[in-house]
Amino acid sequence: MGIEKRLAQQIQHGTLELRFEDGEQRAYGTGRSPYAVMRIHRRRALRRIALDPEFMVGQTYMDGDWSPGEGGLLALLEVLLANFPPEHTQGAKKWLMRLARPLQQWNRASAARRNIASHYDHDEWLFRGFLDADLHYSCAYFHDPQISLEAAQRAKVEHIRRKLLLRPGDRVLDIGCGWGSTALQLAQSEDVHVVGLTLSREQQRAARERIAAAGLEDRVEIRLQDYREIEGPFDRIVSIGMFEHVGVPFYDEYFQRVRDLLTDDGVALIHTIGRFLPPGVTNPWIRRYIFPGGYIPSTSEAMAAIERVGVCTTDIEVLRLHYAKTLAHWQARFQGMREQVAAAKSESFCRMWEFYLAVSEAAFYWRGMMVLQLQLARQQDAVPLTRDYLYSGRLEEQPLHSVPEQAVS
Amino acid sequence: MGIEKRLAQQIQHGTLELRFEDGEQRAYGTGRSPYAVMRIHRRRALRRIALDPEFMVGQTYMDGDWSPGEGGLLALLEVLLANFPPEHTQGAKKWLMRLARPLQQWNRASAARRNIASHYDHDEWLFRGFLDADLHYSCAYFHDPQISLEAAQRAKVEHIRRKLLLRPGDRVLDIGCGWGSTALQLAQSEDVHVVGLTLSREQQRAARERIAAAGLEDRVEIRLQDYREIEGPFDRIVSIGMFEHVGVPFYDEYFQRVRDLLTDDGVALIHTIGRFLPPGVTNPWIRRYIFPGGYIPSTSEAMAAIERVGVCTTDIEVLRLHYAKTLAHWQARFQGMREQVAAAKSESFCRMWEFYLAVSEAAFYWRGMMVLQLQLARQQDAVPLTRDYLYSGRLEEQPLHSVPEQAVS
Repeated sequence: MGIEKRLAQQIQHGTLELRFEDGEQRAYGTGRSPYAVMRIHRRRALRRIALDPEFMVGQTYMDGDWSPGEGGLLALLEVLLANFPPEHTQGAKKWLMRLARPLQQWNRASAARRNIASHYDHDEWLFRGFLDADLHYSCAYFHDPQISLEAAQRAKVEHIRRKLLLRPGDRVLDIGCGWGSTALQLAQSEDVHVVGLTLSREQQRAARERIAAAGLEDRVEIRLQDYREIEGPFDRIVSIGMFEHVGVPFYDEYFQRVRDLLTDDGVALIHTIGRFLPPGVTNPWIRRYIFPGGYIPSTSEAMAAIERVGVCTTDIEVLRLHYAKTLAHWQARFQGMREQVAAAKSESFCRMWEFYLAVSEAAFYWRGMMVLQLQLARQQDAVPLTRDYLYSGRLEEQPLHSVPEQAVS
Repeated sequence: MGIEKRLAQQIQHGTLELRFEDGEQRAYGTGRSPYAVMRIHRRRALRRIALDPEFMVGQTYMDGDWSPGEGGLLALLEVLLANFPPEHTQGAKKWLMRLARPLQQWNRASAARRNIASHYDHDEWLFRGFLDADLHYSCAYFHDPQISLEAAQRAKVEHIRRKLLLRPGDRVLDIGCGWGSTALQLAQSEDVHVVGLTLSREQQRAARERIAAAGLEDRVEIRLQDYREIEGPFDRIVSIGMFEHVGVPFYDEYFQRVRDLLTDDGVALIHTIGRFLPPGVTNPWIRRYIFPGGYIPSTSEAMAAIERVGVCTTDIEVLRLHYAKTLAHWQARFQGMREQVAAAKSESFCRMWEFYLAVSEAAFYWRGMMVLQLQLARQQDAVPLTRDYLYSGRLEEQPLHSVPEQAVS
């Protein structure tokens, strides 16, 4: 079926207007909002998208085949996601995609290194440009919708610090430490020793520089190491935005490692994107260009692995829409540096990056994505029996601004 | 293998001492605590337990074949549970048990009525005797370990009331309303209309009496009806201690009903016993004598059904050890009325009831049981984006003591 016929059939919610270079215009749907405009620069865009929409919407955008009109990418994605349900591929193709999943996510240590390097070894200035000043590359915590991205990222770490119930002298493991922001903030808030693990040489180098600048080399250690290669025990384990890289075939091994690395009274906090929907597959465009080996779990998938491993889940927080807001901040900052990125990299790179940020934001609004904070313990009484301790004071009252500015500028 | 050989092999943690009527004593295990004593009145007890321990420990206790020594039933169960891992049946028997599960839990409406009546139509004075004054037959919320059972049950409802975000004028459905305690407390705290559903005629009658005594007939309605037979919509749905009776084959239908009965901005709170362990089977003694058709889900099982139905899980609280404490209160109160129960019913009934309470308490301590509070919504922003609203004031400051005493005495 051609894409025009398909659009006419499937756009039932809101409106999609196509504008061609020769002035031709066609509108599909109800005529009412949400109203999205797609400016078609090359007619091949429609044919290419019809062949493989899941991949080709992103690919044709990268190739400059079309641009969004008023409302931008987000409005367009709202209409597309509202009218094309997730994983609508049926029958044989659906099962082939399911069968391919273990291969796509076969993130043994060597593949994990390659996958991580492909994304996180991008030039550091790119991440410095669109992330917050502390370089947190994960969902912030907007306990107040008016606060800045910087404040929301520090609030996220403070919220997690409370969930970890840090005690002076604790040995803390940070699996997937990024540029060391969480490790730094934890080490500054409490007299603890933090070991951060990353698979990106660039992240390790940058994190070490920041730790040295903060004078915290005796408290924070950053290792270029896989989570399967470290030895414990640790009193506390934190892992933020790393579980998305583990892959379903390695879930049991991941949680088994977390369990084995923890002391008897240990506590872990796993912060990961999750989905309200049943288990699915990773979008092929995201897999190709952004996160090879990546996968967003359903809560049931993560919990089944945790149950098999035999660790107690002591709390599950479902952070909704916080990541949409975080991504909106990132997109705004990225747009502010777009010319600089286009000059240093390419227009195609800019289009890839802005599409990645937009489609991610859209997925949190309209395709059932959220963030899970899983608090785990070997003993069910390792954390208090009510959650009052998490809410006993305003997040701002905590030492949220103690990271020296020079460490991140 | 005879039970003595098996005890000698398997008691590795703590000590089990057997004392026979003729003065013979045998001890198995380390000789150290936890130390449990089993006074064997009839030698057949050991043979019967060896044949089918999962069923026969309870059955032989009911039959008076043995009694616990110092430490009571709980100390004995601690040693037994610590040394006999859950569902240790292997191979063919394990698979037969798994295959039998759908049949055991085939709780279509007619079977559900029969199963519920078998437990909840026991004489009301029995429940009045061992439960709190408001007749809450589910896990209390001990936000402070020192509070009374009465205060902890009222705190539970207040905690749930906050999770429901009740608004004046809301229509509230209480699936499995018991003796109407939650419906009453909600209707007294807020100007809402509550429909409570029970399958027990005794519960319906008693609940209606209490509602009349409280003068709340215009706000609270108690129906003898299955959750599959009610029509919506409702702004809020609460279901406390009822999901355990649904049965895995009906999980999708249950959550689909909850979803379909909710308004677009609706919120539901499902409070159920859960297990840290992977999916299993119900203990055959519990199934026979206490909860026919009952089953305790793993979090992964409940979540998989919720994901398939397409409703958002906006929060998951894992209440650990609160039910152990609740059961300890119930056991103490039951022991206080034991002579009365033995006279009215039988010694065997007393033994059944105290074993049920003890084995349940033990399961929360030592066999991975907990309570899940699943907050569900059709829209992810139907509840606030942080959990601050649940912890904004002490539970005692709420109107927790407004149920007139005469309604329950």
